[in-house]
Amino acid sequence: MSGLSETRYGLHVDVDLPYEEAIARVTDALREQGFGVLTTIDVKATLQQKLNREFRRYTILGACNPTLADQALHAELEIGLLLPCNVIVYEQTPGHSAVAAMAPIPAMQMVGNEALTPIAQEADRRLRTALHRLEQAPGGPSTAS
Amino acid sequence: MSGLSETRYGLHVDVDLPYEEAIARVTDALREQGFGVLTTIDVKATLQQKLNREFRRYTILGACNPTLADQALHAELEIGLLLPCNVIVYEQTPGHSAVAAMAPIPAMQMVGNEALTPIAQEADRRLRTALHRLEQAPGGPSTAS
Repeated sequence: MSGLSETRYGLHVDVDLPYEEAIARVTDALREQGFGVLTTIDVKATLQQKLNREFRRYTILGACNPTLADQALHAELEIGLLLPCNVIVYEQTPGHSAVAAMAPIPAMQMVGNEALTPIAQEADRRLRTALHRLEQAPGGPSTAS
Repeated sequence: MSGLSETRYGLHVDVDLPYEEAIARVTDALREQGFGVLTTIDVKATLQQKLNREFRRYTILGACNPTLADQALHAELEIGLLLPCNVIVYEQTPGHSAVAAMAPIPAMQMVGNEALTPIAQEADRRLRTALHRLEQAPGGPSTAS
């Protein structure tokens, strides 16, 4: 459970999983927490196609818990500017991936609407549970560093 | 040009345009500024489908300027947590819509990486230009309030 680290805007785990498997596993773990993946952006393919630039394998998943999104939109109409909750998966080295979720609490603090606080706390709790679940999977938590 | 207002996390304009036309016009205006729409979430349809809840007509567009995204990803690997730049369109009343873009500068301040500052400033400038362009369209700027 100790593998989860926090940045100023994200919750991060390193996992000993190949890139595609990390995407599949985090999608399942999010689903267990009530988050469906509404959008998928293949960053590597997009930069290749638009700019002919090489980049590591990197995907942005737009994860939405409809109940929490509905509550948030009723508390703050323009919160759609910060929805869905992004979850990124990128390859560190073959067989080793990073998975991170946007940290809901700092994002909601930027908005400055106290009605969002319990919603952000609930989203935060569920996202942490999903990331911990990834670590518990066989081959999950990284032993690389 | 005075119709653009700012919240703590967004740039907002009200326009005298029907909802669908506001979506089409902002998509064009974003394209002129180098932002392609990579993702579209129909919020009303999603809440209807997942929760059987009524909501106003509301769309979240995921807008990406590939050059700026590439620069941002090289400056801060996990910035994908805040990409693409969300632009929302929602119906105020029939014939009147609101359009708002995520404000790049406060979002980048949350991240706390100074290398992102000029990129956020450039994105901010382009998004403001796109929103002003909407206002200049015939029937654009709202006279409602």
